Amino acid sequence: MTSNARPPRMLIGQLAPTCSGEVTLRGWVFRIRQLAKTTFIILRDCSGTAQCVVATEALRGVDIGVEDTVEVRGTIIQDARAPGGFEVLASAVIVLGAANRSLPFHANSDLSQVGIDAILEHRPLALRSELATDVFRVQAAILAEFRAFLARRHFTEIVTSKIVASGTEGGTNLFELKYFDRAAYLAQSPQFYKEQCVAAFERVFETGHVYRAEPHASSRHLTEYCSLDLELGFIDGPEEIIQLERELLTSIFEGLSLSCGSALSRRGVTLPSMLKVPTWEFQECLERLKLAHGRSDLYDDLDPEGERQLCALAEQETGVPAVFVIGFPLSARPFYSMPRGTAGAAQSFDLLFRGLEVTTGGQRLHTRSSLEAALAARRLDPLSFGPHLTMFELGMPPHGGLAIGLERLTAQVLGLANVREASLYPRDRYRIVP
Amino acid sequence: MTSNARPPRMLIGQLAPTCSGEVTLRGWVFRIRQLAKTTFIILRDCSGTAQCVVATEALRGVDIGVEDTVEVRGTIIQDARAPGGFEVLASAVIVLGAANRSLPFHANSDLSQVGIDAILEHRPLALRSELATDVFRVQAAILAEFRAFLARRHFTEIVTSKIVASGTEGGTNLFELKYFDRAAYLAQSPQFYKEQCVAAFERVFETGHVYRAEPHASSRHLTEYCSLDLELGFIDGPEEIIQLERELLTSIFEGLSLSCGSALSRRGVTLPSMLKVPTWEFQECLERLKLAHGRSDLYDDLDPEGERQLCALAEQETGVPAVFVIGFPLSARPFYSMPRGTAGAAQSFDLLFRGLEVTTGGQRLHTRSSLEAALAARRLDPLSFGPHLTMFELGMPPHGGLAIGLERLTAQVLGLANVREASLYPRDRYRIVP
Repeated sequence: MTSNARPPRMLIGQLAPTCSGEVTLRGWVFRIRQLAKTTFIILRDCSGTAQCVVATEALRGVDIGVEDTVEVRGTIIQDARAPGGFEVLASAVIVLGAANRSLPFHANSDLSQVGIDAILEHRPLALRSELATDVFRVQAAILAEFRAFLARRHFTEIVTSKIVASGTEGGTNLFELKYFDRAAYLAQSPQFYKEQCVAAFERVFETGHVYRAEPHASSRHLTEYCSLDLELGFIDGPEEIIQLERELLTSIFEGLSLSCGSALSRRGVTLPSMLKVPTWEFQECLERLKLAHGRSDLYDDLDPEGERQLCALAEQETGVPAVFVIGFPLSARPFYSMPRGTAGAAQSFDLLFRGLEVTTGGQRLHTRSSLEAALAARRLDPLSFGPHLTMFELGMPPHGGLAIGLERLTAQVLGLANVREASLYPRDRYRIVP
Repeated sequence: MTSNARPPRMLIGQLAPTCSGEVTLRGWVFRIRQLAKTTFIILRDCSGTAQCVVATEALRGVDIGVEDTVEVRGTIIQDARAPGGFEVLASAVIVLGAANRSLPFHANSDLSQVGIDAILEHRPLALRSELATDVFRVQAAILAEFRAFLARRHFTEIVTSKIVASGTEGGTNLFELKYFDRAAYLAQSPQFYKEQCVAAFERVFETGHVYRAEPHASSRHLTEYCSLDLELGFIDGPEEIIQLERELLTSIFEGLSLSCGSALSRRGVTLPSMLKVPTWEFQECLERLKLAHGRSDLYDDLDPEGERQLCALAEQETGVPAVFVIGFPLSARPFYSMPRGTAGAAQSFDLLFRGLEVTTGGQRLHTRSSLEAALAARRLDPLSFGPHLTMFELGMPPHGGLAIGLERLTAQVLGLANVREASLYPRDRYRIVP
């Protein structure tokens, strides 16, 4: 072996106290402590962290600091006191990429003292913090569990276009696009596409971006977010979709507890079984809010305070701070909503979880005549929904579905105060960089 | 049990010849054959098809046709001649959603006789054809296998914004958007974002849309496509990324053979191991094309004919019609490409598979000074890349990655002539509906 030859790089997660021979590791300097004789480096890679010990003398003339990317060559020695039961006795440390020595904070900094604006301004650096990394590892696990659960239930993943000729709900709050010599829009929802795909696949899901040109600057709104959409045919009613979501979220949370246990415990998060989340009628919710909080200001929708109050009431009754609210007024729901009874309610529901709406769903109209009547009642022009209406001549089953906001769900799972913290590159009224 | 009570619906895939008692099935009428005494219905749901037999007398006055959605109640009887070893002796057939009786084609039609325009015009109906359904089941499986392979290798899934303030490559072919009171653009690639995420997570992947405002109307281009992106840190060179893709594609193809075996065999498709796909230098490719085909018209890039010719040459040598081409001219690659040697080549590669480029990848520059020099050499303004350049002060590892076009890969796996056939709702120069 020449002096330049080295064993192939190993991931820290592949190491064990019993590894013999020389190893090559690569990663970031998470912490460094330089004593007269010995220098301790905590090295971090995508699979974990390891303590490396090197003679300070061997680093003479080498400038190594926190956040540098380095290669470490050494041997594994057992050490019961070290995390993992071993440390790396390093013979050489080589800097691969030096970090600026005046960064505003580090991966090992306490980011709770750093504001959301500074965090977004220094996104890649802030992401190195374990608390931030945790958020996106949990988010990735939610995505994986969502897809795995639905694949087990015969759902087919679909990828539908986000460039559309018109909106699904009449044309407000759309972002407009120059599409060569004409105008197009960014999709607010894959609703029509997933219904079309139900006509072919019966059960479909999509995890993709949707766009809302809403001029909100609240802690709960993004103009671009990832929507966990599903739609299925041959349902008996919206209660079947609600039950599916109970099982889906319970499965996701169980998966998170297994794959992200340490991330959850770092934040003191425990996740409930969602199987017992109750379903309350919308009118019943208004009565409960009146009774418990004297509220008489709500009539056709809930507000953020009402959502928090309902979750607290549900927690008192069931132990879980979540409730499905069903039977919203038809007038407050899209034209394709199925009526619930004859008193102007819709077969539409929201899931409120820990004080925030994280899901909207419902059963849809599935005959052309009922859709045409619904459009007429809202004074919408059936001609502009022509291609969509044609679909209902193909033999459509009774169907429905739901959409979960990924960033909102991530935020509620982890107890984040602002949905932006659950988006790598959030977009809002004022922000399109980084 | 009242006359309306019925057992809960079962999926056809859950049935077995030994099921006892009454069952309820729901699905589409795939075929129907009405004889004097007996009517045979092939029922299709998301899990399979089953033959249902009903007394023609029992259907008197009921209008049932192909593509209707129906509920069938009946009992299972063993029948060795039927697919699955059973058929359903139906006591009742109820139409849930009637189909128009003059549809242009049906799920059981031979779509090879129907043009791509008619297919896209009647997308939901065309999707019911098994050959079309196959395409998107294979596509869904590619997505699932791509993610599963990378998760096993410590890659973290990321979701990055598709609304950006400027392009990654200097601003051509961007779709422009009205973002409240300013202009924004649709992302051509998550390149900068995935590099930033490498700075935090080391290994990342994303499956998301990218946008190219290219006025092509060829069989290989879409203006919106799904990009299978990955990026990883601490690499030794682009050969490491190439080897990763060999293993990734081999794993995906093995997964497809297991989960989509019948879809593949319906099209006569067999998938090769990609482990032996060779890597040829770009200049070597030009020489091979000159030698084999007398071509002297190529100098800084390949063309579609060259891609087909190289795949044929690779197949002659290795048995697999695929080749990695490395060392494209730097001038033909983005500014962040790492040079390969000193003769003006880049550490950039393409994968050509069955005659078509399906992947672009490479190693990127990872120091601020080298990026600034590369920008200056191309007369690009470093100021407009300010936030991106700042990242290279955070301690960046040597890194690289690749992007696979999902629709192109699907098309090449299945031997489709037009990439549009592998997109549920393709977008091109002229098409934004449905």
